[in-house]
Amino acid sequence: MSAAAAEDRALPSLPFDDDALHEECGVFGVIGVTDAANFVALGLHALQHRGQEAAGIVTHDPEAGFNSARRMGYVRDNFTSHEVIRTLPGTIGIGHVRYSTSGNKGGTAMRDVQPFFGEFSMGGAAVAHNGNLTNAAQLRKELIERGSIFQSSSDTECIIHLMARSMGRTIPDRMEEALRKVEGAFSVVAMTRTKLIGVRDPLGVRPLVLGRLGDGYVLASETCALDIIGAELMREVEPGEMVVVTGEGVESHRPFRPRPSRFCIFEHVYFSRPDSILGGKSVYETRRQIGVELAKEAPVEADLVCPVPDSGTPAAIGYAAESGIPYGMGIVRNQYMGRTFIEPSEQIRNMGVRLKLNVNRALIRGKRVILVDDSVVRGTTSRKIKEMILDAGAAEVHFRIASPPTAWPCFYGVDTPERDKLLASHMSEEEMCAHLGVDSLRFISLDGLYRAVGEARGRDPERPQYCDACFSGEYPIVPADMVERGFQLKTAAE
Amino acid sequence: MSAAAAEDRALPSLPFDDDALHEECGVFGVIGVTDAANFVALGLHALQHRGQEAAGIVTHDPEAGFNSARRMGYVRDNFTSHEVIRTLPGTIGIGHVRYSTSGNKGGTAMRDVQPFFGEFSMGGAAVAHNGNLTNAAQLRKELIERGSIFQSSSDTECIIHLMARSMGRTIPDRMEEALRKVEGAFSVVAMTRTKLIGVRDPLGVRPLVLGRLGDGYVLASETCALDIIGAELMREVEPGEMVVVTGEGVESHRPFRPRPSRFCIFEHVYFSRPDSILGGKSVYETRRQIGVELAKEAPVEADLVCPVPDSGTPAAIGYAAESGIPYGMGIVRNQYMGRTFIEPSEQIRNMGVRLKLNVNRALIRGKRVILVDDSVVRGTTSRKIKEMILDAGAAEVHFRIASPPTAWPCFYGVDTPERDKLLASHMSEEEMCAHLGVDSLRFISLDGLYRAVGEARGRDPERPQYCDACFSGEYPIVPADMVERGFQLKTAAE
Amino acid sequence: MSAAAAEDRALPSLPFDDDALHEECGVFGVIGVTDAANFVALGLHALQHRGQEAAGIVTHDPEAGFNSARRMGYVRDNFTSHEVIRTLPGTIGIGHVRYSTSGNKGGTAMRDVQPFFGEFSMGGAAVAHNGNLTNAAQLRKELIERGSIFQSSSDTECIIHLMARSMGRTIPDRMEEALRKVEGAFSVVAMTRTKLIGVRDPLGVRPLVLGRLGDGYVLASETCALDIIGAELMREVEPGEMVVVTGEGVESHRPFRPRPSRFCIFEHVYFSRPDSILGGKSVYETRRQIGVELAKEAPVEADLVCPVPDSGTPAAIGYAAESGIPYGMGIVRNQYMGRTFIEPSEQIRNMGVRLKLNVNRALIRGKRVILVDDSVVRGTTSRKIKEMILDAGAAEVHFRIASPPTAWPCFYGVDTPERDKLLASHMSEEEMCAHLGVDSLRFISLDGLYRAVGEARGRDPERPQYCDACFSGEYPIVPADMVERGFQLKTAAE
Amino acid sequence: MSAAAAEDRALPSLPFDDDALHEECGVFGVIGVTDAANFVALGLHALQHRGQEAAGIVTHDPEAGFNSARRMGYVRDNFTSHEVIRTLPGTIGIGHVRYSTSGNKGGTAMRDVQPFFGEFSMGGAAVAHNGNLTNAAQLRKELIERGSIFQSSSDTECIIHLMARSMGRTIPDRMEEALRKVEGAFSVVAMTRTKLIGVRDPLGVRPLVLGRLGDGYVLASETCALDIIGAELMREVEPGEMVVVTGEGVESHRPFRPRPSRFCIFEHVYFSRPDSILGGKSVYETRRQIGVELAKEAPVEADLVCPVPDSGTPAAIGYAAESGIPYGMGIVRNQYMGRTFIEPSEQIRNMGVRLKLNVNRALIRGKRVILVDDSVVRGTTSRKIKEMILDAGAAEVHFRIASPPTAWPCFYGVDTPERDKLLASHMSEEEMCAHLGVDSLRFISLDGLYRAVGEARGRDPERPQYCDACFSGEYPIVPADMVERGFQLKTAAE
Repeated sequence: MSAAAAEDRALPSLPFDDDALHEECGVFGVIGVTDAANFVALGLHALQHRGQEAAGIVTHDPEAGFNSARRMGYVRDNFTSHEVIRTLPGTIGIGHVRYSTSGNKGGTAMRDVQPFFGEFSMGGAAVAHNGNLTNAAQLRKELIERGSIFQSSSDTECIIHLMARSMGRTIPDRMEEALRKVEGAFSVVAMTRTKLIGVRDPLGVRPLVLGRLGDGYVLASETCALDIIGAELMREVEPGEMVVVTGEGVESHRPFRPRPSRFCIFEHVYFSRPDSILGGKSVYETRRQIGVELAKEAPVEADLVCPVPDSGTPAAIGYAAESGIPYGMGIVRNQYMGRTFIEPSEQIRNMGVRLKLNVNRALIRGKRVILVDDSVVRGTTSRKIKEMILDAGAAEVHFRIASPPTAWPCFYGVDTPERDKLLASHMSEEEMCAHLGVDSLRFISLDGLYRAVGEARGRDPERPQYCDACFSGEYPIVPADMVERGFQLKTAAE
Repeated sequence: MSAAAAEDRALPSLPFDDDALHEECGVFGVIGVTDAANFVALGLHALQHRGQEAAGIVTHDPEAGFNSARRMGYVRDNFTSHEVIRTLPGTIGIGHVRYSTSGNKGGTAMRDVQPFFGEFSMGGAAVAHNGNLTNAAQLRKELIERGSIFQSSSDTECIIHLMARSMGRTIPDRMEEALRKVEGAFSVVAMTRTKLIGVRDPLGVRPLVLGRLGDGYVLASETCALDIIGAELMREVEPGEMVVVTGEGVESHRPFRPRPSRFCIFEHVYFSRPDSILGGKSVYETRRQIGVELAKEAPVEADLVCPVPDSGTPAAIGYAAESGIPYGMGIVRNQYMGRTFIEPSEQIRNMGVRLKLNVNRALIRGKRVILVDDSVVRGTTSRKIKEMILDAGAAEVHFRIASPPTAWPCFYGVDTPERDKLLASHMSEEEMCAHLGVDSLRFISLDGLYRAVGEARGRDPERPQYCDACFSGEYPIVPADMVERGFQLKTAAE
Repeated sequence: MSAAAAEDRALPSLPFDDDALHEECGVFGVIGVTDAANFVALGLHALQHRGQEAAGIVTHDPEAGFNSARRMGYVRDNFTSHEVIRTLPGTIGIGHVRYSTSGNKGGTAMRDVQPFFGEFSMGGAAVAHNGNLTNAAQLRKELIERGSIFQSSSDTECIIHLMARSMGRTIPDRMEEALRKVEGAFSVVAMTRTKLIGVRDPLGVRPLVLGRLGDGYVLASETCALDIIGAELMREVEPGEMVVVTGEGVESHRPFRPRPSRFCIFEHVYFSRPDSILGGKSVYETRRQIGVELAKEAPVEADLVCPVPDSGTPAAIGYAAESGIPYGMGIVRNQYMGRTFIEPSEQIRNMGVRLKLNVNRALIRGKRVILVDDSVVRGTTSRKIKEMILDAGAAEVHFRIASPPTAWPCFYGVDTPERDKLLASHMSEEEMCAHLGVDSLRFISLDGLYRAVGEARGRDPERPQYCDACFSGEYPIVPADMVERGFQLKTAAE
Repeated sequence: MSAAAAEDRALPSLPFDDDALHEECGVFGVIGVTDAANFVALGLHALQHRGQEAAGIVTHDPEAGFNSARRMGYVRDNFTSHEVIRTLPGTIGIGHVRYSTSGNKGGTAMRDVQPFFGEFSMGGAAVAHNGNLTNAAQLRKELIERGSIFQSSSDTECIIHLMARSMGRTIPDRMEEALRKVEGAFSVVAMTRTKLIGVRDPLGVRPLVLGRLGDGYVLASETCALDIIGAELMREVEPGEMVVVTGEGVESHRPFRPRPSRFCIFEHVYFSRPDSILGGKSVYETRRQIGVELAKEAPVEADLVCPVPDSGTPAAIGYAAESGIPYGMGIVRNQYMGRTFIEPSEQIRNMGVRLKLNVNRALIRGKRVILVDDSVVRGTTSRKIKEMILDAGAAEVHFRIASPPTAWPCFYGVDTPERDKLLASHMSEEEMCAHLGVDSLRFISLDGLYRAVGEARGRDPERPQYCDACFSGEYPIVPADMVERGFQLKTAAE
């Protein structure tokens, strides 16, 4: 499409990686610490599960000015050497890990790697965000017509151009003005020469927390990134809040019209790390509780409760505890799998899931096995796992899924297939069970999921407490660009 | 020391990696399949836990002759591209993954990466081995005096030079003659233009299995490497056996004087993958059984049984099941840790275990926690984990270790610190408990371990069924080179 | 200064490379040929002497859109593999080789490598230019104030932003409008999806030629780039002309107010390749003629005329022919010198000119030697060469310089030291002779140089036929940004 | 053929590079200087014309022992960074540049890159050599039969194995014994922990000089490598001499039966650098004298004497001076050509000589041109150059060749095509003239060449003063391996 696209393509993902949802980004920022880049690198390493394709760091130092480094690949492989860190001096810095852009599924180009930087008349600013702008295409078109030159296919660049065209006298003012023009889900971390800025969209779809590290402050997508550097959780940045952090402390702004929050419920199910705290709740404990609910909603006689590693493990522990059926590692994950094979040969591509998972045949043989997995997307991996389990001699295979059927794509920063690729978009639970060829298949109910995250009465259908569009098809923010391209919203009949 | 040493040094391991034992090698070979290199790469990927520093593959094709590729780093990063695989044509191939040489703890040089190749008057042969020759230094000295030129610091090269000097008329004959001169633990996989050869030392210290894949045959250190390519386990190569595999089938030779076998018991505890089968027993099930034995031998009142991931998991499941105390993931492992940070900056080095593990604070807080780990080597990691758990607010910390105290170094292919670095070499269980600062610390007994691996009566002190030198100090093969360098064998008094 | 600066720095030049003037760029474009990228790569290879630090190519293909590749280093090392060329499909393409930016003497950043690309509402365009805009800093400041985001430190980017803000309905219209706002010396090559565009500034300071290749057309800085691909020279693009080339042919526009041309006379002396044709004159023949003039103006009794390789060779041949003194290779150049040593160790840096040149001692010994060089910049290399020649036993050393004293910096696309670093800015010919310690030193006169390039009556002082600001201090275009920064123009007294 | 061959192949040469002879190696050694590796790197840089594919350096330091580095590519790109040099500590070191092995024309493997290293019972030694052993295949076969393991396809490795098997008590003793068993042309540079050793074969076919640098000593293939580091030429190592250099000084040994010397006459014509001194004679001056002889032997009426750059230049200068016909640069060489294009695309491969050379059309047009080249090998380049010259409008083209017809391959360390690929092996001068399609073609006579190198009476047919086998077919050393493979020596009839 655009120039430079050929230059630095991302490595392809493995085919069987297609059958999972991927958070698209993680953000991190720190101010008031020596060698900020080191802390940013560690924070991004802790957030690596939110984006494995590329990472970027920007820092500022009064003498050296703004400096940045962007690399394809893991944080640990690219951002931990003296050689790189010493090119990033300063006591303030932000960083970003990413999976892929909404517009560029084929791979990440280096020029799309955040943070983005803009030089304004009052100085420079760097911006990174987690989420997705639902009106980015429209904004982009308008900005180009007025003479902005885009360098990337990333929607984050819209924010920079909107800031450049703002008449605001300070960078935070310009950011407020810019963000009032964008729609969608976003948790932004930004920096100027002296300020660290964090913003969450009005609904607070994506997470962002504020922490304290000695005399400095930290912003991060998840609390696990505070833990790794020994920072203390202060609070979440609130939906619709902008925090501006300087050496003097934290100022709170409210640039947007207040609205009831709609945090992404899938963060609890899958995206966030189990050792993170979301909305005051332990992710691990929520997932274990999902397993408990699932055991209550969908019991079955069996000999073994077995997680599909690694994401199904907490729910499997909960299911086993509630049901009294023994817990066991019936599937073993190859810990050296990493993100991907580089240019795998055809023979290796066809190995699929066997490269990553092996059945513990001695444990499985002759048993009635309950497999607990986090979700079913296309169903291709589920089929392969079922085959492996049966090949190993299991007597019965029962799938229990720790989320409701994923029937709708996400437009708020999660990489999902098109709607018709989602198994649940066109099959009932029974049809999926037959399609996968298992003895039983049960998803947790939407109410059961809400109970597990702490809503004792389940989902409020009038005013849902979370964004659950991927399950319910009820989109709290109109996906304007997608509708423009022809996406059909849920009708009253559905 | 020698030339070329400066050329290609291995990456340094992280400091906290020092506090674990490492299997030094894994071997794999295949004959009678199209594109053998692809299968070797997959097999080595499944054996990656046995050696992460480097890997090598040799194949033979009637037209292209012998070809090899050797790389530092993971199999998945180096041996899966078309570009590499097409340089390795042929229907026969062998491969090797390695951790480090006995003589070269500072890192692996490329020239030390197996398989080794030798051109003899009757043709070429490639050799790879898992284990350690206990008289390699003596052999090397003699061979140099007679005019052999060594290219590496690997003891495997002795085998090649002994073969070169043999008067045997076939390569298997020369290998027999060579192996009769070496002492130590070795599972060898070798190939000529037409033959795949596997040998285990007379005591069968290290594992080696034989499998069938269509019309072809496979040799591998562990059964998990058969699973990944869909091969079927035929049997283990027996202690003291040499198998010579051609298109026609498998010939069995017995080059050595028969002796009772002494398989490495630590393979059950830690080295092998939980989904492998050793001596007909599931490694996962053995480890779970160790947890059961440990719960019987060393019960304690507590609220949570928590594995130290990942190796403590099966024993923790067993301990929880036997004790009735809930099982939970109190420690979460960063799956993006990989082998190492490349040239970590000082600040990052000091992060130590926090880069790899995080405590699930919400789960741990206020609980009496039983931590189940596989072993205690230097004790440094155990101390750090204890501190993390207490910082997270645990009420009590009880360590339960799935192996007896490791008090002696291994000279049979496992990388262990010098004896005085082993905590158990100079401390009793009580002293270690005080040193680590935990509420209790208990190791499984040696008899308990033997029971868990299926010896109902425990260890036979007259004629132990396994090699357990690291626990007992009873070395079934005299470590001649080490004694020459001053190592003190266990005295009657000890 | 700006973000990303740390990412990809250029390799440092060797110290003794400081003592030469460097053309900053070469441009090339082609339309109407299969696999345009191949031709662009060859053309840039032929223009490599105009810029060795980096190169970039953009092509367009109806299906693949615009694609680009930019690399640090030589064309031959980066743009000749299948792998790169196949990422650049299309029948239209442009390219650029560069030495360094005016604003960024420390090295070239990847983001400064041309061509630059902009997406406008009517489609994309790529732009590359050879020259220097003398009001770029002012334009940049204004554009930033109005909301443009700059991605590079290159003055070429101003052109793209001016085009983006133009209300013109076609890209050539926008380019005309943009170029009417810039001042300075520029030869621009640009492309849209269907058009190849070439422009020279009103004075025509930098060269640009138009050629024919089969049914296609070519634009190039010099004719040697036509020769390498077998294209035929049609004519020069004229000063102040814009040519727009499509499948149908060449349209000529005149966007600027007509002015008398002032082509850079130093292109004849040094920058252009000797096999190129400038203004209908052979560069080689002009240089030989300079030698002839020099022999007439500054004869001396000697035994040997010796060029300082390689640029002094044609003038030395002319001097020898005119004077009757034998010509010989008294200095031999190491053809493997290349652009630079990568990170040379201190010892090697200090070797200076000996790495590149060696004296042919047997030839020099006892002789009175006339050394013919192209220019004297700082004088450091001249001193070292003189020392080498005397060490080798020369009886006398006479320097003859094929250009007048370089006393003023160039602001039109040539990388010159600050004025006070130029030896001729503060020394007379006699002082320089004493400073260098040679037996005689003579520069060609400005009139002699004009005669050699074909102006039989020499320079017209009222209305000079060429730009000779570096010799005369008479700048045909006011260097506005430099004057703003404090540069002192020549006073009437000088 | 052998393992590891696939690992690290050399870059392919361009097709038109096939049409030249290539020296296969250059050697350098130094003792008694601080940071010897720096000097070795500089010396090898000066010898780069003797081998461009790869280079290697070994040094020894009492603390760090022997260290080595080997790289594909140019010295300046690989051996000048601090990073590499600091891995090569010590005050003694040797190095080698190479073109290709005799056995491995397809490219150089890293394992074939010299120096080679061997650990003997009395310590280690590194060996590098320039030349070719004519009985290497026989020696290799015998050594393998006795149990030596070869790691490379290089004939130098035979020397190491012969040394390993020697009963000599010192390394110089072992080297003497080894070298008495080899046949062929060799100039060896070797080192132990404390000694620098240089040897030339009994005929002294390849050059080797001894120099002095402060308190240290230097060995080098050519004097230009002394010049670059400021060392002073002491003398040539004599044919059949072994020098052993220590801190105390230089010892001279005579390991071989004395024989009349037969230095390679082609070193004067082409291989050596024009600024080197061979046998007390300036190479430049010899080549100029060849041009003078050629003008006497083969005069022709013409307008221009034009060298084929760069190697034809001195002879063209001589021809022009003797004939009185003007000298001019009718062909211009692209100085950025370098060794090769990496993986050139087909289109670029077909460009052939135009990538490297361009005709100075303005100079050539309408002229009768004498082209002076160093040699004709296959004739393919000569044809292309002739076409370029005629295309440019030359009236006549006369080739004058500065060597006699090359009709026989060299087996003494020069890479020549098989005999039937040599144009002169099956064509007379007249036939070649017709084949090339030029107006006249004349080679210097063998006697003329001898006169130019200083033999006033020409060649002594009974006892030729030089090795001129490539011209005469008279091989002073029987090429035993080649004869074994079927090479037909010259018969009495020829």
